[in-house]
Amino acid sequence: MLEDLQAIVGAEHVLTGADAAPYGHGWGDPAHATVPLAVVRPASTEEVAAIVRLAGATGTALIPVAGRTGLTRAGHGEGALILSVERMNRIREIRAEGRSAVVEAGVILANLHSAVEDHDLVFPLTFGARGSAMVGGALGTNAGGSNVLRYGNTRDLVLGIEAVLPSGAVMNLMSPLHKDNSGYDLRHLLIGAEGTLGVITAAHVKLFPKPGAYATAMVAMDDLDDALALLNTLQAETGGSVEACEYMPGTYVQAHTALPPGHRAPFDRTWPVNILVEVGALAPRDCTPGPDGRIPVQSRLEEVLGRMLEDGRISDAVIASSEAQRREMWARREAAAEIAGQHKLRITLDVAVPLDRVAEFLRRADARLAQLDPAATTSVVAHLGDGNVHYTIFPRDADPVHKEHVMEEIEGIALDLGGTFSAEHGIGTVKLGAMTRRKDPAALAAMRAIKAALDPAGIMNPGKLIPPA
Amino acid sequence: MLEDLQAIVGAEHVLTGADAAPYGHGWGDPAHATVPLAVVRPASTEEVAAIVRLAGATGTALIPVAGRTGLTRAGHGEGALILSVERMNRIREIRAEGRSAVVEAGVILANLHSAVEDHDLVFPLTFGARGSAMVGGALGTNAGGSNVLRYGNTRDLVLGIEAVLPSGAVMNLMSPLHKDNSGYDLRHLLIGAEGTLGVITAAHVKLFPKPGAYATAMVAMDDLDDALALLNTLQAETGGSVEACEYMPGTYVQAHTALPPGHRAPFDRTWPVNILVEVGALAPRDCTPGPDGRIPVQSRLEEVLGRMLEDGRISDAVIASSEAQRREMWARREAAAEIAGQHKLRITLDVAVPLDRVAEFLRRADARLAQLDPAATTSVVAHLGDGNVHYTIFPRDADPVHKEHVMEEIEGIALDLGGTFSAEHGIGTVKLGAMTRRKDPAALAAMRAIKAALDPAGIMNPGKLIPPA
Repeated sequence: MLEDLQAIVGAEHVLTGADAAPYGHGWGDPAHATVPLAVVRPASTEEVAAIVRLAGATGTALIPVAGRTGLTRAGHGEGALILSVERMNRIREIRAEGRSAVVEAGVILANLHSAVEDHDLVFPLTFGARGSAMVGGALGTNAGGSNVLRYGNTRDLVLGIEAVLPSGAVMNLMSPLHKDNSGYDLRHLLIGAEGTLGVITAAHVKLFPKPGAYATAMVAMDDLDDALALLNTLQAETGGSVEACEYMPGTYVQAHTALPPGHRAPFDRTWPVNILVEVGALAPRDCTPGPDGRIPVQSRLEEVLGRMLEDGRISDAVIASSEAQRREMWARREAAAEIAGQHKLRITLDVAVPLDRVAEFLRRADARLAQLDPAATTSVVAHLGDGNVHYTIFPRDADPVHKEHVMEEIEGIALDLGGTFSAEHGIGTVKLGAMTRRKDPAALAAMRAIKAALDPAGIMNPGKLIPPA
Repeated sequence: MLEDLQAIVGAEHVLTGADAAPYGHGWGDPAHATVPLAVVRPASTEEVAAIVRLAGATGTALIPVAGRTGLTRAGHGEGALILSVERMNRIREIRAEGRSAVVEAGVILANLHSAVEDHDLVFPLTFGARGSAMVGGALGTNAGGSNVLRYGNTRDLVLGIEAVLPSGAVMNLMSPLHKDNSGYDLRHLLIGAEGTLGVITAAHVKLFPKPGAYATAMVAMDDLDDALALLNTLQAETGGSVEACEYMPGTYVQAHTALPPGHRAPFDRTWPVNILVEVGALAPRDCTPGPDGRIPVQSRLEEVLGRMLEDGRISDAVIASSEAQRREMWARREAAAEIAGQHKLRITLDVAVPLDRVAEFLRRADARLAQLDPAATTSVVAHLGDGNVHYTIFPRDADPVHKEHVMEEIEGIALDLGGTFSAEHGIGTVKLGAMTRRKDPAALAAMRAIKAALDPAGIMNPGKLIPPA
């Protein structure tokens, strides 16, 4: 097996033992380390296809991984062969006029961001791990992040894909087109399939014009429901140009200021509700400084915040007056993983509820948790514009029965409110219990049938995403 | 069989003979009429499920139909049982605050448009057949239309679906959420599957704020490439607010003016290139009349067109100064089906190419057609913002071999230019030849495997979308 792999990719790209060990667990999750059989790092789609065929011929479990920043252990697997796409890191083409790019699965998100910015374009998928996360993982997970409100999830940003199916066949659906109704949408089937239906090797992604100006603010208030009023007012005033609306409770802000080496708080005092809001203006008349030297989109944000301050609906606000201030605001929001990483025991919930139920979800979740585990603390952030709440619990102990029970109870509150138990992180193995409990049975049966049809030998990332029947 | 059907839906909703005959062919396509076994018209999801189970138990081919305005004969089938969703026509709920609606498959698009307009919202899917086309058919086909440029295809407008799978199981994925990563995206698999994987019975769709003002114009020019400059300039000036950019050649405009009872031409003389362009403004400062009484978004369109007239890049332009004028412009564009319907022999091509290749596609297609069939004429319209060209040929005769050869040659030009043979109409039976010739073989194999897995008895719309192996 190892010799065959070496023949495909070269000896230096088949890792075992200590070299392979880091691939046995995800980002900051050594507590759940597994020991892979080996790690293989192909450089091309053809090499990926050869590896998949070898895995099929030998009945070897094969786990595709990219930046390994996932949060559901979808890339873990004791004794499995890990296929890392990290060497397939070329941006094959940027079509500035057509506003699209052809990228390989191993391209790091932040590198794609930089490359397209040179063309005054953006690839809007962004989240804290963008310096490590790769295109292939983002597609495999259908990652979300902070700009979904305006641009959609990963799948909404993908025009075409290239993938190696479990049969070893290369499927080329690398269309640059916005309309292509030629059969089942296999692109959307593979996106979000977490590597269980094949290995996505490349994608043709959409790009968007870079906003000519941003207006970014931190806003303090007492009542989370007023944040929805802020979002709706800003959307109406700007014609739907809000890029992000991120919620951080006072406890989160305090945890951030306490992170070494210490960070500035956004306000003089601690407020229960802190909102990072950002508007991105595209039309020249919103971006070009007026006779008073002020940028219209920023003036408009100031006006809206001024009115809401007068009405008493918000308590304080700071508008970023430089790119450095804007980045500081975003760094605070993106410290969520670092804050959670300080705790060894974690229960990571990633729920979504309708926008107007976020406040209620949090009230009920906090109350229920206080009953279930009075010693537990939480770290909470939310993509408010999507109703997506990251509710991370630091429980009293590592008891897996307790952990699953807490997950079940808190996810149940989200479902009661018309929500989902998995908004953007995916399933992996961590949410298999919730899939069993909550997913529509007809949908589960269809998933099992599709998996068996496309991967009859069950080699592609077995045991992930679909719970056993 | 008929008695069993009557027991499910009531005797008056099982049609046979002359009552069933109109269901044997699509919109204006009596030349390809088929004779169905019977037509059954369920009133509920439960009735649909019972019918699907009966079809499964008896091995009966079952064809779901809605408004029957499709263009690929996906709803035809000699001797098959036709399931019409026309009685499932309730708008179950409009969530104005959440900007979504829950609609049944038999809701006529135009009815949904009217219902949400009362809330100052739009459901942006629109095309000429909207007075007859229904939600279920639009989802089954992943319909496109005139506003894809801004809002995307049908699949981009759907948050959740309810469907009856070939097993007879009801799959409830009626999520109102914008983020839901809980397993394979079966919503996207069923959307565009043309009823081959089940019957979509209802959907949770997105709604959008209704633009506060539209700016609509007919623009004349000599060179189609200048239309792309017009689109790009307008997009940049308005921050991406162009709703539609529709191309009509001079021959189309002439055919329209000649339609009984006769119609006004847009310009004093005939121009080779006629563009209908529309901008929809959302932000109050673009919609509210200024001190001069003019609406800013309309002034801006006027400025852009004025500059392009001066540059000589456009030759003439008329801006709609009333809703009636705007509707007249749209009525001209939407007469395409009526114009084509005057010809008994038609070859309908629905290709897409990258935006900047539309002009080249048309040049090459016209030249090739003149060689293949010197007597043929065409009717051409294009959704220029999506690179989607409806290239309808009126051939010399009905010879099917000639017809398929012409299709192959013209679609080949689109593929040469990086395009697709099927942009928005889908496959049905009309494009099965192209699927065989052009679709990625690994994708075709995957489609066959998925079809066999979910519909092992092959009852759901057999013979459509997937060509025989």
